[in-house]
Amino acid sequence: MRHRLKDVAERAGVSVKTVSNVVNGYVHVRPNTRARVEEALAELNYRPNLSARHLRKGRTGVIALAVPELDIPYVAELARHVVTAAAAYGWTVLIDQAGGRREQERVVACGITDLLIDGLVVSPSALTAEDLAGLDGTPVVLLGERVEHGPADRVVIDNVAAAREITDHLIKLGRRRIAAIGPQRTDEGTSARLRLAGYADALRAAGLDYDETLVAPASAWHRADGAAAMRSLLTSGVRPDAVFCFNDTLALGALRALHEAGLRVPGDVAVVGFDDIEDGRFSIPTLSTVAPDKERIAHLAVELLAIRLDGDRAAPARALSAPYRLELRESTRTP
Amino acid sequence: MRHRLKDVAERAGVSVKTVSNVVNGYVHVRPNTRARVEEALAELNYRPNLSARHLRKGRTGVIALAVPELDIPYVAELARHVVTAAAAYGWTVLIDQAGGRREQERVVACGITDLLIDGLVVSPSALTAEDLAGLDGTPVVLLGERVEHGPADRVVIDNVAAAREITDHLIKLGRRRIAAIGPQRTDEGTSARLRLAGYADALRAAGLDYDETLVAPASAWHRADGAAAMRSLLTSGVRPDAVFCFNDTLALGALRALHEAGLRVPGDVAVVGFDDIEDGRFSIPTLSTVAPDKERIAHLAVELLAIRLDGDRAAPARALSAPYRLELRESTRTP
Repeated sequence: MRHRLKDVAERAGVSVKTVSNVVNGYVHVRPNTRARVEEALAELNYRPNLSARHLRKGRTGVIALAVPELDIPYVAELARHVVTAAAAYGWTVLIDQAGGRREQERVVACGITDLLIDGLVVSPSALTAEDLAGLDGTPVVLLGERVEHGPADRVVIDNVAAAREITDHLIKLGRRRIAAIGPQRTDEGTSARLRLAGYADALRAAGLDYDETLVAPASAWHRADGAAAMRSLLTSGVRPDAVFCFNDTLALGALRALHEAGLRVPGDVAVVGFDDIEDGRFSIPTLSTVAPDKERIAHLAVELLAIRLDGDRAAPARALSAPYRLELRESTRTP
Repeated sequence: MRHRLKDVAERAGVSVKTVSNVVNGYVHVRPNTRARVEEALAELNYRPNLSARHLRKGRTGVIALAVPELDIPYVAELARHVVTAAAAYGWTVLIDQAGGRREQERVVACGITDLLIDGLVVSPSALTAEDLAGLDGTPVVLLGERVEHGPADRVVIDNVAAAREITDHLIKLGRRRIAAIGPQRTDEGTSARLRLAGYADALRAAGLDYDETLVAPASAWHRADGAAAMRSLLTSGVRPDAVFCFNDTLALGALRALHEAGLRVPGDVAVVGFDDIEDGRFSIPTLSTVAPDKERIAHLAVELLAIRLDGDRAAPARALSAPYRLELRESTRTP
């Protein structure tokens, strides 16, 4: 016999709504109540029927999140926030790691609808607007700047302004030879292009030259790439006194390379990143960075999906902007 | 019109098998060939039909991976390997983050079958054997030691032996006051219990006392928990000369707390972790650790799922063991 929420609620002596809150993982349930409900769920061996919950609306209650690589801390943190935000709508989130390969992202974007997913949130790395054209009405929300003029709703942050501000922070410290690590070929990363533009803006506004030899490309944005780029800057003899890394993992790699070269941070070289991942709050030294409001990004993405599901699927695509702030820590703190 | 693999193969001048390899993301395709196939896929706007590919076997070609928390680097790295291993079977992996909540894990384990998932890989944190009893024949493979005597296939590593070896490494360095960070209440973590047993074994074998005051519990295993546990050890006045942290993120937090206390690593306190996450290869100092063969764990898990799918679903559950090795780095390297 398959028990229903009502049976669980009766046994636990609480409302059906409370049982539903526990099952959906909402945090605002008192510990005592939660324990009582969990006991009742276990005693009755309750098995929720995902389909039934949403079938009245002709839905499955499941959305998918497609990400390029899961072991990028920023992506993993964002994924956690999307799961939390979706829970408020009673949605289960299934995550697909596309590996940054355009073909695999197309497989997900187009193929996943076969699984009766209600909607899709995509953190795209290589997807183009044309790829998304074949989606046949399954709502899609894009995270980030890629596919700027595509047909889908999207949540963005102002990468140019954020990059300008963090570079300006380095200038205000008195640094004049500010390197940049992270630019990519223009067909690879829109975020990279926008962050480079913000970096150049800040230099120009301060009357500093944009020096090609201080700009180190990085086709991937892992720690190893940041360490390699920093080493190549140091061996080239350009002697930066600060470096803006286009994400935090690049910056953590750069910190390591500077340590190996016997240089002090921030004494010899100040270092900043972008993303505010947990790692940078515990690194030695801790890392100054741009902190996008990840919780807000996730919330807006899920909200856009909900609006699209309940509203006009043919309405023009919307772009919502999420805020960011600078987090200034030891890597730019002069005593 | 919906094009098929055959049409793509004709246009690209390759075999259908090669197109299939590209679409499934296999790595052993020559770059030139891959580029030609990708061009043909784009020109024909090819949309794979996930269902059709597997329907002959009555399958969807999709497996799910349920994990407690995605922003634990070890979990994220393992997830990446599972996605890669599954691609060799033509499977798409959807990942569900259960948030370490038992109820949510039950929802996934029992509810996911409504979505016509072929099988499920679970990295369980709170799931019990009874929870899995209701799975009705959907093959499940468990990662790790939790649910030791459950009804499901599982992949394990020898946590006791690994913990003994890394503790023994500290003893061989001449350390005598070796702290442990990470024990949990017995109903929380089996890995914690086994690693504590290995730690105690090593002390006993070396004739060292097991000193309760050197053992700092941590109910969660994030950097902040490791930093807090290390601080409480330091302020309690027990003065360890080494510390075994039950995972790498705890150890990275401990490194930070030692740095803030003005202590040198490994000069004053040697530090080891467990998991070999990427972070520990770039931290200052780099981190000595136990490196489970994550690629092998993922491969075995997918293989067990495939065997179960094609074979006798009622056969007794199997447990396969994956190897590990010690990675010795700066945090235990005395000059």
